[in-house]
Amino acid sequence: MDSPAQLKPGTFKITAQDGNARCGELHTAHGIVHTPIFMPVGTVGSVKAIAPDDLEAIGAEIILGNTYHLYLRPGDELIARRGGLHAFNAWSRPILTDSGGFQVFSLNDLRKITEAGVHFRSHIDGSKHFFTPESVLTVQRNLNSDIMMVLDECVAYGASRDYTSKSLQLTTRWAQRSRAAYPAGTAHNLLFGIVQGGFYQDLRAESASQITDIDFDGFALGGLSVGESKAELTDFVYYSTPLLPAHRPRYLMGVGTPFDIVNGIAAGLDMFDCVLPTRNARNGTLYTSQGKINIKRKEFAEDDSPLDPNCSCYTCRTFSKAYLRHLYTAGELLSFRLNSLHNLTYFLDLVRGAREAIRAGRFNAYRSGIEACYPDELAQVKGWE
Amino acid sequence: MDSPAQLKPGTFKITAQDGNARCGELHTAHGIVHTPIFMPVGTVGSVKAIAPDDLEAIGAEIILGNTYHLYLRPGDELIARRGGLHAFNAWSRPILTDSGGFQVFSLNDLRKITEAGVHFRSHIDGSKHFFTPESVLTVQRNLNSDIMMVLDECVAYGASRDYTSKSLQLTTRWAQRSRAAYPAGTAHNLLFGIVQGGFYQDLRAESASQITDIDFDGFALGGLSVGESKAELTDFVYYSTPLLPAHRPRYLMGVGTPFDIVNGIAAGLDMFDCVLPTRNARNGTLYTSQGKINIKRKEFAEDDSPLDPNCSCYTCRTFSKAYLRHLYTAGELLSFRLNSLHNLTYFLDLVRGAREAIRAGRFNAYRSGIEACYPDELAQVKGWE
Repeated sequence: MDSPAQLKPGTFKITAQDGNARCGELHTAHGIVHTPIFMPVGTVGSVKAIAPDDLEAIGAEIILGNTYHLYLRPGDELIARRGGLHAFNAWSRPILTDSGGFQVFSLNDLRKITEAGVHFRSHIDGSKHFFTPESVLTVQRNLNSDIMMVLDECVAYGASRDYTSKSLQLTTRWAQRSRAAYPAGTAHNLLFGIVQGGFYQDLRAESASQITDIDFDGFALGGLSVGESKAELTDFVYYSTPLLPAHRPRYLMGVGTPFDIVNGIAAGLDMFDCVLPTRNARNGTLYTSQGKINIKRKEFAEDDSPLDPNCSCYTCRTFSKAYLRHLYTAGELLSFRLNSLHNLTYFLDLVRGAREAIRAGRFNAYRSGIEACYPDELAQVKGWE
Repeated sequence: MDSPAQLKPGTFKITAQDGNARCGELHTAHGIVHTPIFMPVGTVGSVKAIAPDDLEAIGAEIILGNTYHLYLRPGDELIARRGGLHAFNAWSRPILTDSGGFQVFSLNDLRKITEAGVHFRSHIDGSKHFFTPESVLTVQRNLNSDIMMVLDECVAYGASRDYTSKSLQLTTRWAQRSRAAYPAGTAHNLLFGIVQGGFYQDLRAESASQITDIDFDGFALGGLSVGESKAELTDFVYYSTPLLPAHRPRYLMGVGTPFDIVNGIAAGLDMFDCVLPTRNARNGTLYTSQGKINIKRKEFAEDDSPLDPNCSCYTCRTFSKAYLRHLYTAGELLSFRLNSLHNLTYFLDLVRGAREAIRAGRFNAYRSGIEACYPDELAQVKGWE
């Protein structure tokens, strides 16, 4: 791969296009991110069971940190005193942090939304806290994340049109306050806006119009993968993506399966994160070039072949399915690392493959190949296209 | 380090001596083990939370497998069909397997000893099984371990003189049956005998006399670290070791702390294994050149220094105590790998340091330096020497 000179943080250059799918370079203070990209999730300051040596070996370019979790434990000020999150968790490449909003809104009974911000209780000790659009930026600057996200309200699936409409206006006002508190160019930490609007096309358009009026470094689609059907998700991804400006990076938050990711790329999205590869790894569900398998199945007890002969990760280079099944069924800790390492490699290879396909002008065939590995998901959107 | 030509499995060459402490080379079918050596324990076919890449990086030369656990799950015959334990768990260096006796005798109510062998129930599903001196060798040959151990009875601490005396005779008869079932030179799998005799000096001497009459490739002290005081353990180590022939490797089973290991080496022992470094790692107890610390202590919350500035492991090269404390208190899976990697490095460095000290004729000073890091243990044997 070329090593282009690093430009001013926030610079986004589109380097190839194939249909709506595109390749880009997003410049950050800690290096260049090549899009489309998948970002492993390091919730509490570590990608679960995986150290930076493994992340570097599998070519991760950027990881996520969760503001809510790090704010509560060990505390963003403690991390700031350590020199920021990069120094704290020994990760020298880019980091994106969410705003904490999604976690807080998931607390349900434990939170209350006001115009000023959101009151919530810690899931750890019940202590009371208050997040505002401004305070979550202070937290994220303490973490010194390369890409900060604004506080938004993530509306539950099934919310009424009226509620969703009022909510997106609040999200817009919060977005305006965020940019005002941290004007463009203040420092090297990029700031992304988030489009809401639930599952109402006109409300999505309204939110996109308001949010993209603000000078953010990138734009995200929020409030997806919250309980809707695969067809609805796919529908809204294809509908909403063109509402985001083409010259800025576009980020689909918290989504999704390999199927979702190739469809997101096809729609013109650039950035993806999801806990699926690591969470599924811990449940024994592993992604391969032939689709998903569950390693605990009896049929693998004497299977000497690697998990995926097309994968070059340490797990696949070194161990058989029989051994991985044994580790899983015996509850051995090593199972978590080996399975997570493989699943993350699969997701990183997925976007690497997408970038190559886009550059070669054969992305559509690439997407079809991936979709064919996930017939259940394909069936759920059948007749949709 | 020199790479001497590999000789016939079982060859043991003493390469340096300092008092009773000695350096040696034990030749096995999977390479040479440099003694004194610490052997990480891979109970169920993996050293907990640690993969072979890490073990190789920290210079582990030989690991343990537990016959009882592997026999029950995934089964020794299944492992034999995979090409043995080395192929199954991707470890190409030597492996020692215990006989399963210690685990079975720990089952208490779930086992019954007869002249023929020991009946027991699985701790996993309650199913009935029967181990004989001969059958545990079949299991260990299925695993294709480099060093097999005979079935013995490990007597509980506090057992009467009468019980201990009868038990050691049974252990001798089982040892004779073991060697008869697998005569010396049958194959490349070495076979070690085990001396019992509880905490009675004359019975230890009687057992040693009987067991060392049999042509084993090495000899172990069993039945120690079963609840006795530190002074008793140390006493019996120094008393019993000279009862084992000097020209064969001498193995102290399941012991112990760094203090115990340097004293074992001083007594003339060559091989050690213990779950302490990995188990303590999972409890947050970490070994350093300044003694033991518990990483969960509040005082480390903002400590940017490495766990041990004198340690070259990945954990110490990469992370601060503050980060390791955070991982531990947040219950992050990565904590297990990083802590285990460090503690194993400490134990391997401990025996590497001992080998260097013996070669340089300064082992006594080395031992005193280690003992000084563990004042609590030293106090327990004070006045004993």
